[in-house]
Amino acid sequence: MPARHSETAAVELRADARDNRHRILEAAREAFATRGLDVPMAAVARRAGVGVATLYRRFPSRESLVTEVFADQMAACGSAVEEALADPDPWRAFQTVIEKVCAMQVADQGFTEAFLTAFPEAIDYERERSRAEAGFADVVRRAKEAGRLRADFATADLVLLLRANCGVAAEPGEAAAVGSRRLVAYLLQSFRAENAAPLPPPAPFRFDHPGRQTS
Amino acid sequence: MPARHSETAAVELRADARDNRHRILEAAREAFATRGLDVPMAAVARRAGVGVATLYRRFPSRESLVTEVFADQMAACGSAVEEALADPDPWRAFQTVIEKVCAMQVADQGFTEAFLTAFPEAIDYERERSRAEAGFADVVRRAKEAGRLRADFATADLVLLLRANCGVAAEPGEAAAVGSRRLVAYLLQSFRAENAAPLPPPAPFRFDHPGRQTS
Repeated sequence: MPARHSETAAVELRADARDNRHRILEAAREAFATRGLDVPMAAVARRAGVGVATLYRRFPSRESLVTEVFADQMAACGSAVEEALADPDPWRAFQTVIEKVCAMQVADQGFTEAFLTAFPEAIDYERERSRAEAGFADVVRRAKEAGRLRADFATADLVLLLRANCGVAAEPGEAAAVGSRRLVAYLLQSFRAENAAPLPPPAPFRFDHPGRQTS
Repeated sequence: MPARHSETAAVELRADARDNRHRILEAAREAFATRGLDVPMAAVARRAGVGVATLYRRFPSRESLVTEVFADQMAACGSAVEEALADPDPWRAFQTVIEKVCAMQVADQGFTEAFLTAFPEAIDYERERSRAEAGFADVVRRAKEAGRLRADFATADLVLLLRANCGVAAEPGEAAAVGSRRLVAYLLQSFRAENAAPLPPPAPFRFDHPGRQTS
């Protein structure tokens, strides 16, 4: 029964393809975490145990691979911001988003880089990212209006915090998580309006937007 | 006049040796800054344009190379601490040391790693480092006794600050310096005793001491 045979073969092929896809995503996640987003695609293929051609057939660009690997985290980020917007306490909302995002960063260091980088062709990912960013701006505005967050807190300060947290997240073992919690607690105390004293100007950090160049 | 000849040759040889030494130190400084302290010695030799044998003849170990490259910064660190100890205002002393060390870190990222690493065989370097560390502990004690620095500031928090600053120092161009100044200003505000609120425990960060293993 050739039809039956080819059906079985097709099922096996699909299972193989699924396995390959899974292996590629896992390999990419590890490679991004340890070597950064600009790790060579050939290194990802090697780690996944597939050929470079197979890798490119599934993920025609680095961008499609990065955005797929970090889709879950991006969604979690978006949810964290939405929950914060639903919180009646504007300071607690602000604090919770910062704590959650920094903990995510410690758990997966590649994600910060992915979050801060623009992927113009990845429409869904960019939409999710823009929504998270706009939502965070609302969280900041509410916390300032409530007189809890200092007025000179700049959007670039979130990027500053993520960069600083990144330096701590690179520590081996438990030190990363413990250090990050302490750093975030210190910074949150200095973000409170009642502790505000004059600061030097914000850093020229920004989220990398499609069509914009970062310096 | 063969004696004259050999004298000239000896002078030229010494000049060559000095040039080599200078080139190696410059190459090592750049390599440490961009690739970290564990860059292969062969890569340093290649960058300096000398053979690996020449490199090892001048610097028999990585340790001797690292400590020579960072001897000036270590001395500057020690001076910063000594000046702070001479300052009659304990809070200004604390603040100034933190600001100076973080600015040094932005100027030369390899130095932080060198400062936090133990080099048991480099006696002079270790002596200088221990003195800077003990001096900093005095600066901290004085600032706490004066009631200006929060009592729960831990020595590990200096390492935490350096790690966080390191994440910001990795930014390209001016952003590193501007971002670092803003980060340090935020953290110094949260270190003030009058802003203190409970914190999670300090990270298990520490200066790497000869004979001790870091996790």
